[in-house]
This record gives sequence, C-alpha cells and structure tokens, in this order.
Amino acid sequence: MSVQDCQDLRIDGQRLLDRLEALAEIGAIDGGGNARLALTDDDRAGRDLVTSWLRDLDLDVRIDAIGNVLATWAPEAGGEADDRPPVLMGSHIDTVRTGGRYDGNLGVLAGIEVIQTVSESGHRPDRPLAVAFFTNEEGARFSPDMMGSLTYVGGLPLEEALDIRGIDGATVGDELIRIGYVGPYPCPGPAPHAYVELHIEQGPVLEAEAVDIGVVESVQGISWQEITIHGQANHAGTTPMALRHDAGFVAASVAAYLRELALELGPPQVATAGSLQLHPGLVNVVAARAMLTADLRNTDDQVLAVAEAKLAAYLAEIGAAEGVTIETRSLARFAPVQFDPTVVDLVEATARRLGHSTRRLPSGAGHDAQMLARVCPSGMVFVPSVAGISHNPAEYTEPQHLIAGADVLLQVALALANEEDSP
Amino acid sequence: MSVQDCQDLRIDGQRLLDRLEALAEIGAIDGGGNARLALTDDDRAGRDLVTSWLRDLDLDVRIDAIGNVLATWAPEAGGEADDRPPVLMGSHIDTVRTGGRYDGNLGVLAGIEVIQTVSESGHRPDRPLAVAFFTNEEGARFSPDMMGSLTYVGGLPLEEALDIRGIDGATVGDELIRIGYVGPYPCPGPAPHAYVELHIEQGPVLEAEAVDIGVVESVQGISWQEITIHGQANHAGTTPMALRHDAGFVAASVAAYLRELALELGPPQVATAGSLQLHPGLVNVVAARAMLTADLRNTDDQVLAVAEAKLAAYLAEIGAAEGVTIETRSLARFAPVQFDPTVVDLVEATARRLGHSTRRLPSGAGHDAQMLARVCPSGMVFVPSVAGISHNPAEYTEPQHLIAGADVLLQVALALANEEDSP
Repeated sequence: MSVQDCQDLRIDGQRLLDRLEALAEIGAIDGGGNARLALTDDDRAGRDLVTSWLRDLDLDVRIDAIGNVLATWAPEAGGEADDRPPVLMGSHIDTVRTGGRYDGNLGVLAGIEVIQTVSESGHRPDRPLAVAFFTNEEGARFSPDMMGSLTYVGGLPLEEALDIRGIDGATVGDELIRIGYVGPYPCPGPAPHAYVELHIEQGPVLEAEAVDIGVVESVQGISWQEITIHGQANHAGTTPMALRHDAGFVAASVAAYLRELALELGPPQVATAGSLQLHPGLVNVVAARAMLTADLRNTDDQVLAVAEAKLAAYLAEIGAAEGVTIETRSLARFAPVQFDPTVVDLVEATARRLGHSTRRLPSGAGHDAQMLARVCPSGMVFVPSVAGISHNPAEYTEPQHLIAGADVLLQVALALANEEDSP
Repeated sequence: MSVQDCQDLRIDGQRLLDRLEALAEIGAIDGGGNARLALTDDDRAGRDLVTSWLRDLDLDVRIDAIGNVLATWAPEAGGEADDRPPVLMGSHIDTVRTGGRYDGNLGVLAGIEVIQTVSESGHRPDRPLAVAFFTNEEGARFSPDMMGSLTYVGGLPLEEALDIRGIDGATVGDELIRIGYVGPYPCPGPAPHAYVELHIEQGPVLEAEAVDIGVVESVQGISWQEITIHGQANHAGTTPMALRHDAGFVAASVAAYLRELALELGPPQVATAGSLQLHPGLVNVVAARAMLTADLRNTDDQVLAVAEAKLAAYLAEIGAAEGVTIETRSLARFAPVQFDPTVVDLVEATARRLGHSTRRLPSGAGHDAQMLARVCPSGMVFVPSVAGISHNPAEYTEPQHLIAGADVLLQVALALANEEDSP
C-alpha cells in the first residue's frame, strides 16, 4: 500500500470499544468506573491483560526499570525502519480511586488499535510504530504524578523514584517487585522520533462547543503541596474557643481559602483540597494534627507562582494567629508545557481532513505527553467528555468520538512515521 | 469506729496512684496517654484488670446487659445495710484515641480506694458503698456518649443501644459478646441511694484560680451531629471553579463556620469539628462526598437550640449555593443538667472541712453523673487539670490533687451512706 493510499486507512472501531470494555472489567467499581491505583493488584491485572494483547500482535515488548511497558512494531519491510526511533503512541492504564474507563486507557488501546490496523493493511511505514503505557500517571497513590514518563525522559532519577513512599506506606520499588513489573530495560530510555497521545478532554469545553476533536497546544502547570498542621488535642467541651490550637479548624480554613485564592486570580487558575485528614478524628476531640493537599494549576507559570506565594502567606498568617505550626512539602511541581507547533498543526490539519470540527485548547490535566515533549516533538488529540466529568465513574465519551480520535491518531502517526528526515 | 471518728478517715494515696499507673499501662500510647476505645481488646484488658481488683476486695461484682460493671460492698455488720440502695461512686475506663490517664479512670479507682479504706478501717456505714464503671462514656467509637449510664437509667432502650454501629462498622452488641462483657443483670438497673463522681476538670479554670476542689453545679448541654455532603467527583485540573460541586469545600466551610458560630454566640458556647473525611480523598480529585461532625455545647439549653438552628440555616444556604445535598443525623442530644443542691452543698462543705479551697463551676464535658442524676441525688467533685489539657496524652493532674479529690469523695460518700432517711 502506498503512502497516498494509507491516508484512507481507518481503525476497527468495534475492536477498540471491545478492548476498552475488557480492560474496564478489571478493578471495576460501582457506577461503571475503575479503581486501579498504580502498582496495586488491580493495576497488575490490567497490565497483564494489555501486555497479552501486545504479545498477541507479535510486538517487541520491553519493560523498563520503572515498569513502563513499550511495545514496538518494526516491520521487516521498510529497509532501515528497525533501527530508527519509532513514532510512539501511548498514555497510562492506572486510575484514581474513583476513576472512569477512558482516562489513559483510550490512548493506550487506541495506540494498539492503530498498530494492528496498519499491520493488517499491508502498509509498511518508514519508521517503526510503538505504543507505551507509563507507570503511575495519576499520582493518586504515589507522588509525583506522571512518574513513569518523567523518569523515562530523565526528569526524575530512577533510584529516587523507586524510593518514593505512597499513601499506604509502600514504596514504588517494593510494589514494582511485588507485582512483577521491574523490567531489564534501562530508564531513562531512548527518545522516540515523535510522541502522540490521544486522551479524553476531562473538561467541558469541546462538548459545550459541539467540537469533535481538541487540538492540544499546551498543558497547564501543576503545583501539588502536602500541608501538615500541628495543633493541640483537647477536650471539645471544656476548652474555651480562645484557648484552642485547633489543627482541624486551620485545615478547614486553608481548604476554604483555596477557593478564595482561585476566584481572586480568576480563570484558568484552579485550586483544590482533595485530601483532608484529622487526627485523632473524633467528634469530641479538638484535632491535634491535620493534613491536607493543595492542587494549584495555571497555564501561566508566573500566575501559578503568585498562587503559591499567596498560599504560603496565608499559611504563615493563620499559623501565627492560631498558635499552630505548619509544614509544607512539595509533592509535584511542573511548569506549563507548549507542544511542538509542527505536531499541533499536523493534528489540526489531519482532523479537518477527516471531516471533524476542531478547536485548539490547553490541557487542564497533566499528561505523559508533557514529559515526552522534553525529548521529542510531541502532541495530543482530545475527544469530548460528556458533561466534562472525569475522575468519576460517570466519565463518558460517545463511541463515535472515541473512534474519531483513534482515526486521527492513526493518520497523525502514519504522517510522522513517513515524514522526511529534517535536513 | 463511730460515724464521728470516720470523719478523720483518709484514703491511701500511694495505693490510688499505683492503681492509676497500672491501669495506664493498658493501651498505653506515646506521650504517656491511653487509647482504650470502648469495647476494643484494650478496653477488655482494662476491664479485666479493674474487675480483678473488685474481686480481690470481695465485692459483689455484677455485670449488666450493656456491660456496665457495678461492685457493692455490703458489710455484714450494719443491720439492714445489705438490702438498702448503695451510695454509688464511679465513672468510666474507656478513653478517646488520644486519651489521658486520668479522665474517667480517677473516678473509678478512687471509688475502689474509698471502699477499701472504709472496709479496712472497721467502720460499717449504714448503707452499702458501691463503685461502677459504665460502658462507652466517651462516645469516641459508638454514639451517643455516656451510653452505659444512659441505658442504666432507662434513657436509651437496651435493644436500641446494642444495635448501634460504631465508626468501624461493628455493633455494640457484637463487640460486648466478643470481649465477654455481656452480663446477666438487667439494664436499666436499680436506682442507688445517691451517686458521686470524682473527675478531673478537663478545663483550665481551677488551675488558673489556684483552687483545689471544683464543686460541680451543672453539666452543659451537648448536641452532636454527623453532617454528610454529597457533591460530584471531578478532575481537579480540568474542572473550572464555577462548575464544581465540591463536597470537600463545603465540609471545610462548615468546619470553619463552627468557629464563627461559637464566637457569635459567645462563651460558654463551644463548637468543634473533630472529624472530617473526604471521599475519594485524593490530591487531584474534587471530593464527591464529605462527612464531618459538629459538637455544640452550652449550659443554656435555649442558646444551644439557637446554635443548632443557625448551623441548620448555614447548611441550607451553602448546600443551595454549591449544588450539593446535605444530610444531618443527630448522634447525641442532651439538655443541660443541674445537680442535686443538697449533694452540691455537701461536696462544698466537705472540701472546705478538709481544708481545701473550692469553687462552684459547670462542667463543660458530659459525665455519667448527669445520667444518674435522673434517678437519684447526684453530684461531682472536680480536681484541677494542668493547663486545662485533656483528651490528650499530656493530660495531667498533680498527685496531691488526685489524693485530695479522693478524700473528698470518701467523706462525701460516708456522709451520704450514714445520713438519716428523708421523712
């Protein structure tokens, strides 16, 4: 098949939907979602299933030292294709505790579908095609998020990543060994020729504007902090309000302040306290200790830094006023990322050629693509999320959008695989 | 020994301190405190130790259907003493998760010490002396607090109490069976002649005024509520602030509002959010659900009702503004209690006769005495808490105050045991 003819190739939509359904059965939770926290037994089961599909396609499956799984299709035909860096597709298959069935999974399973489609078509692209799933993208169990892709591109030393302790006290290294996903391939790994990731939008913009395909120009910056407050346990009935050093009150005030901070800075600033714990956590005891997390995001790194500074000032002020000590620890800090303009243009042109309406937009969520962008031209394709709901079992994307996104991924990957080398 | 002579009787202070130390070894936690949540293995171990002391003194030990343990000393001498309702002393030996070593324990072990002192003196009071520890006074595992004494006086149907489910999902009935503390004696039980409870103040007043003995006139009213907020889980990066239904933000706002409410109503109103949980509780997920507790207390029942009404209005307002649904459930509601004026006067006169400075005051905490006050003349003796700290491993009362309080308890109990019947 000629390069010209392969522009008419389309994926097998039902096969993609079937694989999404099959993977969603692992770690299924009420409401149709998934709980496959990174490196848990359910994550292992998900990895085993996806890896079995990779092996069924006779791909060259390589597991690296942080548990990333990369599978390459290097057809014999095509001359030197085997030795050239592949066009990599991928995403992740770990989920948050109340995850949906599309977040991450779509990008990986669409990548598999693309390779199977091309392989069965008889077309032999100039460069290999590859698909990967990266370890612990969500960061719901281990911080930072995007850990596998960050380590792959050399942004986090392997030994440091393996020593990271999760919310349940286990380390990344021990859990990788436990689930059998420590591979022999080195991490950081080799740079691909290019990276393209298909993902659900996880926000309301595309649906609200009735657009089929989102052309992702950038990813907003992320700042995650863990805030620990040390107060004084005391009796809730006998301790006058003025004599309290109530870690619970301070934590609640900080969580409420995050809303105020986001409104003050205005969109696209968002701020969230997703975790808040009190100790001892009893109805009649003024809390001795509290822990909460702050998730701050902005597309503008300077505004994000202002948000961090304002939060720090608020913590200093309320800590002094309430007579408590406050410690903060950075869990993750990623500057905003701009994707490669050539790849962004290619995604847009390809989606339009296939008859889809498009819109350029930034990503509110972090994605593995922002890490790969450090080592190769990278881009993302978004498809609409119904009601913008994500990290929720009710997360949903219409089948025609899943398939449209995978077809755009297919054509973008082929164009990159067949493009001339830069002079 | 004559009634006159026994006015010079004093307890064995070292023996009391030794028993306090021995009990504090069970369920010991860092910092010198105790964690013996009601009906846990540690509570069982504490019960076994105290019960062994009761049996060593040859008391008539009776365990009732809710696990209250009552031990009576009915000396053969003294004519009809055996058939007459006893003067009951007591308190509880369960603790909160970050409990001190005096809260509750002092009243029980001082009661034992009083009986041993009188028994060894040769004095035979007209009425029996008895000591009790009541099940689940703290309410830290099962609500309501003061459950054993409330059931003993008929304020809570036994079957209802046994069906109550704790914070870990276990029921009172199952846990009583598991630890072997379902007794054959009926509950509600017989009314004592009178009830006197020695307790640490758990507040800062006595120490601040350098007073030895607090004469407790009343107990403030308590309102405990569990507040559950149902919002919508969503992605913390992609969901604009204006589109959120963030159960975590609402819970934090409610917890912060409790402070505002208490300050608005002024002392002695107190308000505490001691427990606050988010679900799924992850850094990058807007919380779908939150649960917090509100502990409201006031000596004035009308003001307490105002506090409840204001909280309800706030919940309605923020629920509507944030598009979340809020459910409340009453965990406990006790009106303020006034103690018997005759007993209050007796405590005051006795403490002064023994050379102690005194002060009348209300109790900020709930106590078993307020339940016994429903069925017999009742009163309480307070001793100072260093820095007013309680429900904290750092809870401390000076040995001389522990001993002074036990001597007041001894003399008050003897006076009640030897008093003429009312006409």
